[in-house]
Amino acid sequence: MDLEFVKKLVKPSDKKIVMLVMDGLGGHPFKEEGLTELETAKTPNLDKLAEKSICGLQIPVGNGITPGSGPGHLALFGYNPVEYQVGRGVLAAMGIGFDLKADDVAARGNFCTIDDEGKILDRRAGRISTEKNKELCKKLCENIDIPGIEVFIETVKEHRFLLVLRGEGLTGKLIDTDPQVVGEKPLEPKFKNSASGKTVDIVKEFLRQAEEILKDEHPANMVLLRGFSQKPNWASFTDVFQLRSAAIAAYPMYRGLARLIGMDILETGETVDEEFNTIEEKWNDYDFFFLHIKKTDSYGEDGNFDKKVSVIEKVDSLIPRLMKLNPDVVVVTGDHSTPAILKSHSWHPVPVLLYSKVCRPDKVKRFGERDCITGGIGARMPVEDLMILAMANALKLEKFGA
Amino acid sequence: MDLEFVKKLVKPSDKKIVMLVMDGLGGHPFKEEGLTELETAKTPNLDKLAEKSICGLQIPVGNGITPGSGPGHLALFGYNPVEYQVGRGVLAAMGIGFDLKADDVAARGNFCTIDDEGKILDRRAGRISTEKNKELCKKLCENIDIPGIEVFIETVKEHRFLLVLRGEGLTGKLIDTDPQVVGEKPLEPKFKNSASGKTVDIVKEFLRQAEEILKDEHPANMVLLRGFSQKPNWASFTDVFQLRSAAIAAYPMYRGLARLIGMDILETGETVDEEFNTIEEKWNDYDFFFLHIKKTDSYGEDGNFDKKVSVIEKVDSLIPRLMKLNPDVVVVTGDHSTPAILKSHSWHPVPVLLYSKVCRPDKVKRFGERDCITGGIGARMPVEDLMILAMANALKLEKFGA
Repeated sequence: MDLEFVKKLVKPSDKKIVMLVMDGLGGHPFKEEGLTELETAKTPNLDKLAEKSICGLQIPVGNGITPGSGPGHLALFGYNPVEYQVGRGVLAAMGIGFDLKADDVAARGNFCTIDDEGKILDRRAGRISTEKNKELCKKLCENIDIPGIEVFIETVKEHRFLLVLRGEGLTGKLIDTDPQVVGEKPLEPKFKNSASGKTVDIVKEFLRQAEEILKDEHPANMVLLRGFSQKPNWASFTDVFQLRSAAIAAYPMYRGLARLIGMDILETGETVDEEFNTIEEKWNDYDFFFLHIKKTDSYGEDGNFDKKVSVIEKVDSLIPRLMKLNPDVVVVTGDHSTPAILKSHSWHPVPVLLYSKVCRPDKVKRFGERDCITGGIGARMPVEDLMILAMANALKLEKFGA
Repeated sequence: MDLEFVKKLVKPSDKKIVMLVMDGLGGHPFKEEGLTELETAKTPNLDKLAEKSICGLQIPVGNGITPGSGPGHLALFGYNPVEYQVGRGVLAAMGIGFDLKADDVAARGNFCTIDDEGKILDRRAGRISTEKNKELCKKLCENIDIPGIEVFIETVKEHRFLLVLRGEGLTGKLIDTDPQVVGEKPLEPKFKNSASGKTVDIVKEFLRQAEEILKDEHPANMVLLRGFSQKPNWASFTDVFQLRSAAIAAYPMYRGLARLIGMDILETGETVDEEFNTIEEKWNDYDFFFLHIKKTDSYGEDGNFDKKVSVIEKVDSLIPRLMKLNPDVVVVTGDHSTPAILKSHSWHPVPVLLYSKVCRPDKVKRFGERDCITGGIGARMPVEDLMILAMANALKLEKFGA
């Protein structure tokens, strides 16, 4: 649903919505005829909630499409993930929690190896250590000097770093300098069609200096840049839904995504318990809480079925604390599936439960993938509708038409 | 989902996909409170497969829309059937297996009866026999002579034939010459808006000669032409999905549709057994097999409930041979429903089963319409997403977004 359409229907109410996202929640049986992670987990509290809820499975991007974390979360927040795409440079900034300003240009960088003629020998400089990366970023930061431009160079991991250029009149409409093959020179910075201005010259100067500064390093003696982009100028979540909104997330990437659409970011700890402490502490200050649990996904990616189960059980054990706050609407779901058997994100529909006093519950009594199929949310609801459903259940939407 | 969007996500894998299409599979109880054709059929092998599969019902074009064979199949192959429409002349060529070239112009022809003033007395010339049609087509072929243009005139059935014009610089953008009413003269060939060139003159010359050649025939003394069109320039299935693709179909229409989107057409026999022989023989040469069973539809159209049941049972008996090939993904479905009680195609959702080792099975244990409603594919999945789901299950799609 178009956000402008929804925005016109929004009306105030004093109700509070909690969106509890267990990253990569959806799973798959590890053995044939077995149960999924969520079906295996003992979840008495989520099951009790499911009885009073409307349940189902949701599709983050499209049938059969495996979502990345960015699209998966944007869709949860009501942004069509195909229409609202974030540039890779911006996403890299989100990933390390870099506070990108409106006009900043961000790019993903690789340290690489070039030969005497400037041709690329290794696009990843032998995947240098993160330690070495930090050392090189520091060296670049201390020596790069471009008048009128503030340059940020931040370590991401191994050979990857983030470049941010801050200054007036910059654009992200540049092609990649990474040719994606070895044996060739890095590509010259160039505008994409229709763009112009000074940014190309600034990037050229940055590359000239970087090559000079790194020339005696080995193997990382040059850099490649990709995904030049600027913070998108999207309608803010807070503005569209008229919600005082807060994100509670231990990982920078998710704080970054929430910041991108205008949520407040609450300081919290590393553990699920600490995240629940934070929502309790800030309960009176907001109408909407995005509470993000990372470890379900991490253990899924590791292929660790049992540990993923245990994180789900941990979250389940904290549900009574959440319900004690007397939230009006509670959504429990994931941003995508991450079955331990696949050790990766997947295309499988994601279980979802929506509790409110007016949700018209269905017959589902157990929060698990197979039970959710026959729930009132349906077997494949596009998740971008979920926020609208949550708003409706919080009595925050006017009737459409007379 | 847009094919260009999907294409960008495709990655290679060595997995094989089989799409087994029982034409007109979906049915309806013949008697009140009875079972459908599929529910009546004894299908132990499909039921066993359903237990390990994700099941559901799919919608070929839209809720309540009855699909023709063209749209039904294009949707199965991932082409939105409203967006990807084939001209009627081209469809007629497909229907008789005519190998249309890129620049050919095809039109559907009717033999008709005109009076002395050239006014139409009967748009179908009394539905002449197919035999008579063949005789007239031969006579036209032998006598039509248009310099620089190769003219093909092929019998379809009764009063219907196919006209194909082959030559340089032709266009299909012409209005019909069939006025769709009697008592008027056939319409003069004319371009649709914005088209130009020599095609109108060529069609006029064809009609002038045809009238002359047929003038002593009775009742078929003239022709009417409709649905001028050229082979569409669509993204090829093979290219979009990066699959070495083959069609196994006993009927020309389905070979034609598969050829239209770039599949290889395998020689096969008339029977279901022969079609299964072909897939066994060619198993190593392709990544994707479209296996088409016609008779489920034919018996449905005849209103022969029991014979339709027996074709389904025949196909079921061959499932073990298919599974012995160890396919990675198997889809079993139809292109539309053809309930014997209606003796025609219908709008009813079509049962679908998708098997893979990573499909996250549901609770469905029986491959039948009512059981499929509660399957994980859902009660009404748009079928154009089915190929994407098959690709995902073959691990042939990248993640969307980081």
